[in-house]
Amino acid sequence: MNNLQLNKEGKLHHFITIEGLSKEILTEILDTAESFLGISEQPVKKVPLLRGKTIVNLFFENSTRTRTTFELAASRLSADVLSINIATSATSKGESLLDTIRNLEAMHVDMFVVRHAISGAGHFIAQNTAPHISVINAGDGQHAHPTQAMLDMFTIRQYKHDFKPLKVAIIGDILHSRVARSQIQALNTLGVKEIRVVAPKTLLPSHVEQLGVKVFNTMEEGLDDLDVIIMVRLQKERMTSALLPSEQEYFKCFGLTEERLKLAKPDAIVMHPGPINRGVEIASSIADGPQSVILQQVSNGIAVRMAIMTLTLQNKGDSV
Amino acid sequence: MNNLQLNKEGKLHHFITIEGLSKEILTEILDTAESFLGISEQPVKKVPLLRGKTIVNLFFENSTRTRTTFELAASRLSADVLSINIATSATSKGESLLDTIRNLEAMHVDMFVVRHAISGAGHFIAQNTAPHISVINAGDGQHAHPTQAMLDMFTIRQYKHDFKPLKVAIIGDILHSRVARSQIQALNTLGVKEIRVVAPKTLLPSHVEQLGVKVFNTMEEGLDDLDVIIMVRLQKERMTSALLPSEQEYFKCFGLTEERLKLAKPDAIVMHPGPINRGVEIASSIADGPQSVILQQVSNGIAVRMAIMTLTLQNKGDSV
Amino acid sequence: MNNLQLNKEGKLHHFITIEGLSKEILTEILDTAESFLGISEQPVKKVPLLRGKTIVNLFFENSTRTRTTFELAASRLSADVLSINIATSATSKGESLLDTIRNLEAMHVDMFVVRHAISGAGHFIAQNTAPHISVINAGDGQHAHPTQAMLDMFTIRQYKHDFKPLKVAIIGDILHSRVARSQIQALNTLGVKEIRVVAPKTLLPSHVEQLGVKVFNTMEEGLDDLDVIIMVRLQKERMTSALLPSEQEYFKCFGLTEERLKLAKPDAIVMHPGPINRGVEIASSIADGPQSVILQQVSNGIAVRMAIMTLTLQNKGDSV
Repeated sequence: MNNLQLNKEGKLHHFITIEGLSKEILTEILDTAESFLGISEQPVKKVPLLRGKTIVNLFFENSTRTRTTFELAASRLSADVLSINIATSATSKGESLLDTIRNLEAMHVDMFVVRHAISGAGHFIAQNTAPHISVINAGDGQHAHPTQAMLDMFTIRQYKHDFKPLKVAIIGDILHSRVARSQIQALNTLGVKEIRVVAPKTLLPSHVEQLGVKVFNTMEEGLDDLDVIIMVRLQKERMTSALLPSEQEYFKCFGLTEERLKLAKPDAIVMHPGPINRGVEIASSIADGPQSVILQQVSNGIAVRMAIMTLTLQNKGDSV
Repeated sequence: MNNLQLNKEGKLHHFITIEGLSKEILTEILDTAESFLGISEQPVKKVPLLRGKTIVNLFFENSTRTRTTFELAASRLSADVLSINIATSATSKGESLLDTIRNLEAMHVDMFVVRHAISGAGHFIAQNTAPHISVINAGDGQHAHPTQAMLDMFTIRQYKHDFKPLKVAIIGDILHSRVARSQIQALNTLGVKEIRVVAPKTLLPSHVEQLGVKVFNTMEEGLDDLDVIIMVRLQKERMTSALLPSEQEYFKCFGLTEERLKLAKPDAIVMHPGPINRGVEIASSIADGPQSVILQQVSNGIAVRMAIMTLTLQNKGDSV
Repeated sequence: MNNLQLNKEGKLHHFITIEGLSKEILTEILDTAESFLGISEQPVKKVPLLRGKTIVNLFFENSTRTRTTFELAASRLSADVLSINIATSATSKGESLLDTIRNLEAMHVDMFVVRHAISGAGHFIAQNTAPHISVINAGDGQHAHPTQAMLDMFTIRQYKHDFKPLKVAIIGDILHSRVARSQIQALNTLGVKEIRVVAPKTLLPSHVEQLGVKVFNTMEEGLDDLDVIIMVRLQKERMTSALLPSEQEYFKCFGLTEERLKLAKPDAIVMHPGPINRGVEIASSIADGPQSVILQQVSNGIAVRMAIMTLTLQNKGDSV
């Protein structure tokens, strides 16, 4: 089956999901991001690589944090950015998503960065857009958040250098997490030794083992001998449902505490996609402590998004 | 009577309405737009013509589509764009429109792009602003939408080359359409052979013939032997009033169907300012069909707005 | 006590309040602003001084006018501007202000321009941010609005040249005015001869004399022999409280009328931070009259903000 994300030469043209991407492509992204890392630390944080390109942020779901990182990445590449808040736009005049896309295409834009509450929205747009336009998935429903997963992989490589010997756990609300899904795919492709998910049964997808992970239902078992601990944000709105007891109760069972952290390797790193809920899924002292690389993830996010934008725009799609 | 839009040398300084502009000025806009058409197709979609100019989008009415085209046009000319959503701005602190204008003038801005629900708003601002500032009307009430009309003229010339022999019909809600009003003026000035309006009587202004158009109340008569078909958007909110029966009923009588399209010349082009209501004023198959130039209109819109911005900023106003 | 705003070399690194800044530093700001004044009058209103810097507008309180002047100042210095409306951002996902700051720091931003309803917000952020980041207070609660005060000082110097012999009055709602507080500090530091506050007792802070001002409760006494009249905006929402009678009543007692203006020196200038309430605190004829420098204040605001941005970014903070 042909992968929608790749052009005829097998090069990355869209970036919708980690699924189906080779280790080589993921590694190319990481290597390119490494070359961009220094730009944000220079006095003049700007390179002219995407000058005169038009990047459209199509956010059907509010996300200041993610939108901000894409905007910064784009402007540090000297691209022009157009942010369209769809709630207040033409779709409210009854225009269909496809017509909105067609119109923006006609304005000769180069890239859509798409955030949508419905799984598959980015895929749908990539399938239906002009071949010269690249689509980046900035989070779709509970499906995928691949740029977040790649910045996490970048951070792991930065601290651990080699993926092969690593034991990695993803801890928390796996069921609703598009980030977790993308992380598991990336970790599998990059070939870590062991991937664990640690969560109460109510927050795990059914048949999660089929994703190639080991399942643990207690922190005590799940944290043992880890190299990398990835905490997943607990959506507080889930609390009101029957899935979860109180926040305090959750922290008592699945919160990352100082004591529990000792179960992992002494040089284990602690990651979190943010925004963190201090005292709910993670103790404040750990979030701010020496093993936390949470803010480094944010810094890396700019470089990784710059890399993905540059790589996909280099590679035109099929000449349909 | 002196035309507010022209400076002492008779050059275009504001662009508020087609009314009172000569064929030469309209043709200058079309020719300039033609020279800009290629810019949006280059890898680097940017020229430094308006570098260091400050263009203010003053939108008193929401319009993502129109705002977007002006923003893209401005940034491809390298101007700085400031978008002010008036609903959330100083006017809500009780400041008058004139004081808002005075303040922005004092910040040394160069252009106001104005969208307003009240007819004459752009004219009022042009009358009251500093002589070095240009005002572009991006749609005022039911009065005028001259940049839309010019991109339509550009599209007609692109496909038909010569205006003189053309029969053109504007079809739909003429009564509430600022676009139709501006189109009729432009078509008259550019000297087409025949302009028709086709609509139910309830959607026609009284004495519409005085605008220099032939009136038809059925599609069958109105479409005969046409070169250019311009569909006008049906504002669905009118449906609730006594002016119109249901959407289906409207489509049955005034929708552009495959069958009706055959009444026009075989090489007739179909235009629509968008956003389109599929199955209300136009059949989907026609909107996406070979005679439709609807998306080409959108592409041309960027070049035409670049031309109007550049031309008006070249020409200073009276030294009052 | 160490001044948070200055770095080890005693140079301005943050700009939070006029309090504690020397006459030399205020004068350096005014002199630098003077050199920027011409830029906004050139055909190309742009200098590359802050190219590749990322300036974040952190507005926790809506203010189109102030945000606009900072955005224009930043883009005329060629900086990249990121505007974050906090109401719709991550804090609504329960993230703390400190975590928001930490995240933006990690994205390698260079400056926070902060507007907040709570007094001390800018100070708090400056205290807690990375040493290479500068913080500019764009208005915090009823505490301070130092960039507004500096553009007022700039305007006074522009018209009166020397601060020493001047009699200046600030008139109106001193109690709730962060602008008045900052103006009094700046006028004292720059050494004017006499500072007066003129207001009904209900609109004066208790012990206001301790700020180094003379207090007057009638316009007739307060306006006598003035060089500079600074009107303060009357927040109409106060009208509903017990503090004030009707607008007409207020204008009758404390409005600046033609007649009252004659009590000041014939060459007195009239200032107002805007937006003005015509017929409430100031007569329309005076706001638009020959002694009014209200719009000149707005123009100067761009240059003064360009100066403050440039100066603070030149000076790194402590290497904590």
